[in-house]
Amino acid sequence: MLTLPSIPSLAHEAQALARARQDTLTKPPGSLGRLEELSIQLAAITGQSRPSVARKAVIVMAGDHGVTAEGVSAYPAEVTPQMVLNFLRGGAAINVLARQAGARVVVVDIGVAADIESMDTLHATSLRKRKIACGTQNMARGPAMTRAQAEAAITEGMEVVNAEIAGGLDLVGTGDMGIGNTTPSAAIVAAFTGVPVAQVTGRGTGVDDAGLARKIAVIERALAVNRPDPRDAVDVLSKVGGLEIAGLVGVILGAAAHRIPVVIDGFISGAAALAAAELAPGVKPYLIASHQSVEIGHRVVLERLGLRALLDFNLRLGEGTGAALAFHLVEAAARILNEMATFAEAGVSGKDEG
Amino acid sequence: MLTLPSIPSLAHEAQALARARQDTLTKPPGSLGRLEELSIQLAAITGQSRPSVARKAVIVMAGDHGVTAEGVSAYPAEVTPQMVLNFLRGGAAINVLARQAGARVVVVDIGVAADIESMDTLHATSLRKRKIACGTQNMARGPAMTRAQAEAAITEGMEVVNAEIAGGLDLVGTGDMGIGNTTPSAAIVAAFTGVPVAQVTGRGTGVDDAGLARKIAVIERALAVNRPDPRDAVDVLSKVGGLEIAGLVGVILGAAAHRIPVVIDGFISGAAALAAAELAPGVKPYLIASHQSVEIGHRVVLERLGLRALLDFNLRLGEGTGAALAFHLVEAAARILNEMATFAEAGVSGKDEG
Repeated sequence: MLTLPSIPSLAHEAQALARARQDTLTKPPGSLGRLEELSIQLAAITGQSRPSVARKAVIVMAGDHGVTAEGVSAYPAEVTPQMVLNFLRGGAAINVLARQAGARVVVVDIGVAADIESMDTLHATSLRKRKIACGTQNMARGPAMTRAQAEAAITEGMEVVNAEIAGGLDLVGTGDMGIGNTTPSAAIVAAFTGVPVAQVTGRGTGVDDAGLARKIAVIERALAVNRPDPRDAVDVLSKVGGLEIAGLVGVILGAAAHRIPVVIDGFISGAAALAAAELAPGVKPYLIASHQSVEIGHRVVLERLGLRALLDFNLRLGEGTGAALAFHLVEAAARILNEMATFAEAGVSGKDEG
Repeated sequence: MLTLPSIPSLAHEAQALARARQDTLTKPPGSLGRLEELSIQLAAITGQSRPSVARKAVIVMAGDHGVTAEGVSAYPAEVTPQMVLNFLRGGAAINVLARQAGARVVVVDIGVAADIESMDTLHATSLRKRKIACGTQNMARGPAMTRAQAEAAITEGMEVVNAEIAGGLDLVGTGDMGIGNTTPSAAIVAAFTGVPVAQVTGRGTGVDDAGLARKIAVIERALAVNRPDPRDAVDVLSKVGGLEIAGLVGVILGAAAHRIPVVIDGFISGAAALAAAELAPGVKPYLIASHQSVEIGHRVVLERLGLRALLDFNLRLGEGTGAALAFHLVEAAARILNEMATFAEAGVSGKDEG
């Protein structure tokens, strides 16, 4: 049985203090637009009127998908463990962007269909071994997971983020790796929102027109075969989800429970955020949408969550790359609130009266 | 007589090498969207197939405006020198954001209507003293400057950026400070594009409805009184421009002449970029638009220059704040191209054949 953490309400006093301070800083009130809004959100989340986001991590959950047997991805499934090794060696896009943002990368094997440790022992210490299963089952033929597996993956996600919080964490980003995982993500979004599959399914890493048609048909079959109950988020995750997606649900819930702002990456992370918000609607104000993905279903996710993306960069890589890129913007918001001089400190005249 | 530098053509070989390298990196081709495009633009500008943007500066040109006598700004003109001192002491938004981006702030007094040195000697060494005049004349009653003053301001701008290039510069951002300067900026945009004044004039630092109507009438009067010739960019700058705007024109031309990418801030910098592109159309591919400003005329500027902004953050502060914020994104683009592993290096399988 899954135990959900309680999500605290926002800290309205810190929020009000941050808002009041913004209006004393040496700039016309409101002239820093979304940076000001973000800084006030950070205060409301953290309970600190002058929040810091110095300690940052991107948690990248990796898992495989039985549904790749249906030919839904442009890449072979062996790429999942290969990319996990690339993460551990520091050569992937998420490593580059996290390094620039001063964030650590936490790589979690929650369901890769290969023994990663035996493939490379050099970097094994930085891999979090939380494997629930060697990939999911093919959801086009039956449930992707058992309910117990989905619950275990959520719990592992909470434990991973709790360990990071214990080590010091001010800001967390969500990331994913799993060949085929735009397929369960689209299924999750269709299941929760009722939007037709064709309107939430994109090309993922790059399938052609025939591949896209096949992918849509596979997702429709998975929903027809499994009949996930949209009022039961764990049912949806277990039947048409993925281990890394369920793990990210746990990361999001665990972070919000500890007043840590969560920067959501793209479509796969968005599907996880949608599921987290179904389990605990109180998480929504803890979320920051990093970017608007190329995947068409992502727009539906952001609308449903009431989020507006910080960036629109035509990204479709995943790994947490959009989240890492947005870290700079979130940190800028916190620094503006913390470091700018006030009109009084700087001896600058205010707005003309009348 | 103004001597314009020659703007080199783009480096097509470096551009092609960068594009080819992007397709060998461990990600689906094109999946990093605008980061990939930006990295290829950087290669084309710099002539380096793996460009670095380690050494960064925001050049903030400050000047005053005689047209403030007409009541076009929400703030008194004395704020210009007060904010210059704030820049020199490190308390302004641009200081905070440049610090975060690892960029230096170069503050230039090109036309402030006060003796800044006598106000504060503590930080005087970091102020570039390039004063052409103590502010412009009131353009609602006659030309803002003489042609010689406009040309001198452009030349000073080129000299300032040349000195920075000599000290080491990979990326430059444009910034401005000048109470009242959205008024000449709107006049410049209207003069070059023929778009009606009311469609390029916004609230600046925050005038009310009556103030906005007054501002539009003042700009219309300035254009009627001065009749700037849109085919003669120096005529436009001298009659309805500003010293800091002309200085930024020089910064843009000087940077492009030396193959340095120029990150354009908001509306005032945009008006300068428009003038620079009228003087030397070859500068356009050297420009990177940092953000879409709240000022309505900014959209006209970006369309005319064929630029798409990296950020849409409802900023309207100036100072180069949008440029400094965009530095992170430009640097991310360069780092992705430089630091990511290739498929071959990482032993990752490529896209499925057929």
